[in-house]
Amino acid sequence: MGDRPAIREGEIALPHDPAARTDAGLVFIGRIRSPWARGNCPKNISKARAEKPDTWIELKPEFAPALAGLTVGQPVILLYWMDNARRDLVVQAPAHVDAPRGTFALRSPNRPNPIAAATVRITALDGARIGIDAIDCFDGTPLVDIKPWLETIDIPPA
Amino acid sequence: MGDRPAIREGEIALPHDPAARTDAGLVFIGRIRSPWARGNCPKNISKARAEKPDTWIELKPEFAPALAGLTVGQPVILLYWMDNARRDLVVQAPAHVDAPRGTFALRSPNRPNPIAAATVRITALDGARIGIDAIDCFDGTPLVDIKPWLETIDIPPA
Repeated sequence: MGDRPAIREGEIALPHDPAARTDAGLVFIGRIRSPWARGNCPKNISKARAEKPDTWIELKPEFAPALAGLTVGQPVILLYWMDNARRDLVVQAPAHVDAPRGTFALRSPNRPNPIAAATVRITALDGARIGIDAIDCFDGTPLVDIKPWLETIDIPPA
Repeated sequence: MGDRPAIREGEIALPHDPAARTDAGLVFIGRIRSPWARGNCPKNISKARAEKPDTWIELKPEFAPALAGLTVGQPVILLYWMDNARRDLVVQAPAHVDAPRGTFALRSPNRPNPIAAATVRITALDGARIGIDAIDCFDGTPLVDIKPWLETIDIPPA
């Protein structure tokens, strides 16, 4: 957290950092590999996708058996841990919105639990290395989960 | 974890429990309220939705400002913590599949990080109480995040 964002005008922070008192523990199952770092990272996954980057997952070898049944071309949801985020902001003013907005109305990485979610396609499967079509996070971002994307769960009801 | 599922034939567990050595901490931001408990819980969200249940989120009051900007009718992704799950299974044999399958090819609650994801619609907003159209988890399930569902991030690329 040495480099977390400063508070901007209109933003509201909790009086405490949620990270200081947690209720459950996460394990990192691997890392996301991407060409992105501070300074060159696309603002969102659509922009990342347009650049056709070489992006993949390096899963910890012990979890490789958990990939059985996934196929190349399949859409999956990735959950990943935005480890440079602030966890205390409840209202935020990101540059791309016109007025401050609640954290739960934004996809900002800054949130009580800085877990990002993105739906991607598997482009390759090679042991514990999983190619994906794109991602918009820094190289080395910790991965928390891989789930098959399912229309019945992941498309909003009518 | 007093009531976690037993291992079935064909299932593979890690030699250790991932929960014993974690890399990051989660805070529970509230609880999901539903009519479901062990014995009457629908198998998936489509079945839950068909029963038109009374389901809502009880957010911890400190997080209520983070709802600003959400609207009734809007689709959101909920991330919630399946606190009765096993975290050590890498291959599983749930009753509804014909052969054992890797954990990351399943939406089973049993996974290294037992975070479930569902896309629901907001039906009411009243302070820290948020009505939702349906959910398929037990009453009292801890909530981890609320995110606006966005077509550009949450629909698989072509």
